[in-house]
Amino acid sequence: MRDVFLRACRGEEVEYTPIWIMRQAGRYLPEYQQVRSRVDFLTLCKTPELAAEVTLQPVRRLGVDAAILFSDILIPVEPMGMKLRFYERKGPVLSRPIRRGRDLRRLRLIEPEKDVPFVLETIRILRRRLKRAVPLIGFSGAPFTLATYMIEGGTSKNFTHTKRMLFSEPEVFHQLMEIITNNTILYLRAQVRAGAQALQLFDSWAGALSPEDYRSFSRPYVQKVIEALRETGVPIIYFANGCAGLLDEIKALPADVFGVDWRVDLGRAITRLGRHRVVQGNLDPAALFADMKVLREKVASILRKGRRARGHIFNLGHGILPETSPDVARALVEMVHELSRR
Amino acid sequence: MRDVFLRACRGEEVEYTPIWIMRQAGRYLPEYQQVRSRVDFLTLCKTPELAAEVTLQPVRRLGVDAAILFSDILIPVEPMGMKLRFYERKGPVLSRPIRRGRDLRRLRLIEPEKDVPFVLETIRILRRRLKRAVPLIGFSGAPFTLATYMIEGGTSKNFTHTKRMLFSEPEVFHQLMEIITNNTILYLRAQVRAGAQALQLFDSWAGALSPEDYRSFSRPYVQKVIEALRETGVPIIYFANGCAGLLDEIKALPADVFGVDWRVDLGRAITRLGRHRVVQGNLDPAALFADMKVLREKVASILRKGRRARGHIFNLGHGILPETSPDVARALVEMVHELSRR
Repeated sequence: MRDVFLRACRGEEVEYTPIWIMRQAGRYLPEYQQVRSRVDFLTLCKTPELAAEVTLQPVRRLGVDAAILFSDILIPVEPMGMKLRFYERKGPVLSRPIRRGRDLRRLRLIEPEKDVPFVLETIRILRRRLKRAVPLIGFSGAPFTLATYMIEGGTSKNFTHTKRMLFSEPEVFHQLMEIITNNTILYLRAQVRAGAQALQLFDSWAGALSPEDYRSFSRPYVQKVIEALRETGVPIIYFANGCAGLLDEIKALPADVFGVDWRVDLGRAITRLGRHRVVQGNLDPAALFADMKVLREKVASILRKGRRARGHIFNLGHGILPETSPDVARALVEMVHELSRR
Repeated sequence: MRDVFLRACRGEEVEYTPIWIMRQAGRYLPEYQQVRSRVDFLTLCKTPELAAEVTLQPVRRLGVDAAILFSDILIPVEPMGMKLRFYERKGPVLSRPIRRGRDLRRLRLIEPEKDVPFVLETIRILRRRLKRAVPLIGFSGAPFTLATYMIEGGTSKNFTHTKRMLFSEPEVFHQLMEIITNNTILYLRAQVRAGAQALQLFDSWAGALSPEDYRSFSRPYVQKVIEALRETGVPIIYFANGCAGLLDEIKALPADVFGVDWRVDLGRAITRLGRHRVVQGNLDPAALFADMKVLREKVASILRKGRRARGHIFNLGHGILPETSPDVARALVEMVHELSRR
């Protein structure tokens, strides 16, 4: 197996900078579109053969150094006790959102092998098929991010309901976070048992919190998840989107790798997080619309900054955009490999 | 006139911390809703008597230390040569967006007295009515932010078209920015001539750029606007939303006041911008959903941090949310005044 990604996660010497791409299995790939033309998004997530197939598509086409399980962060929320639907334009909808203390009674601890067997089966299939290829990353949403969906009932612009709860019923919010955290631990442990070789925690909405509130309402639960997963031995990547104002908070977390979005300078992020850290990121996804010369300069600049850290895994600073050309994505992977080779 | 706001802008000694609230004239006020029930948004912007009336509403009800012209950042874009419409849910739409070099030929320099007389008349009415009350802030969008609307044709999530232009046709983008910058200067000069006593530049989408791209594509034009407005003698506030990753870039700008959103710690922002600066901000708008005790703690914490700067103007870190209670907004104003008084 090409294990350069795993070695970079552990801060070991690597012969070139590994790269994978957030949302690398997705709408920008015609072969993904083809699968999706036959099944809806949720069915795709729940059908191991198909989920494994789309997971492998970018590994084949782009030559990335890691595969990431095709799934959605809301998948474990359904067995926790909420009804999940996906709409083409509106995105995910969780009916009967959590708004007050008594709503918590509807939530329960999941039993991954029983409740999300399709996720674990997808991982098992992938490990067999990836044997001589690249490592497989499992993932989940970070507790705060999952909480926002459960409270808002879907995506949100201002997180009005979530913050109303944070600021006026913090004890209810903390109870909810305990439940989500315990579920997240169970879910990720099961992924590792099934074969996930690294884990990424997506804190997609952490950036909506002030640093003070992040310290109170998100970080303690991320910490708990990471500590509980420590014993599995797999590297843990923590990606807080919109992290520029939170770096001084984030650096206290015991993650192996810190994902950085594109709205912060990678060199400065490394200074703030500490040069002994391994970082992941952080090209603006829209840079893939650039001509090759501009793209190359941007990639070289990020690689140069990344060398200041103990380790660097190249990635976009957020998910790849649906309008991206697969050829440019492939060129990016080659460019990162070529420019980072000593 | 209660000029504590203007003195704070200039870094002078003040007896208490002045406060105004972004979007203080808006949907959360029943008296605003009442006006809007009679006219649509664009008509409201274009009818001086009504625009002046809604500008004054929060001055009366909340006791804020400054009024801000009721208008929209896209108002000057229409006479620049684009058709503007507002839709209740979708927001602003500019038809025939700017996508390539030849589209620039449709744009022209505005003549504010002829093209936006209603804005200037609103300012004149307000200055008469505000005589013994508080100063009046004029405003415009910062060039980059206006450019995103003109290129995307409205609000955007990923700024795909804008970034495509930035990265593949930068010379077209820079030409567009020159046109917008020159118009912005004409527009703001006219506002000052009509009576605006301070100016705020809203760079609402600056935070979508990487620091490197912000340096190339937004900052030079903000600098040009500020320098051109210098001669008017009115203080200039620059508010870049999502500024956490851009503070090291922003600090080079010759603004009088630096607006800071809530996703960065105000104390750290002051350290980065320089303690000789005047800052404005930065309570999370959703903190107005908190109970009074929590709100009070948050306000006290921001005031404490603000004291580290040469001057501090209290504000929310973004526009007030439509769900906010006017009574809580009023309590916030009183709280800021009370807690900051020596």
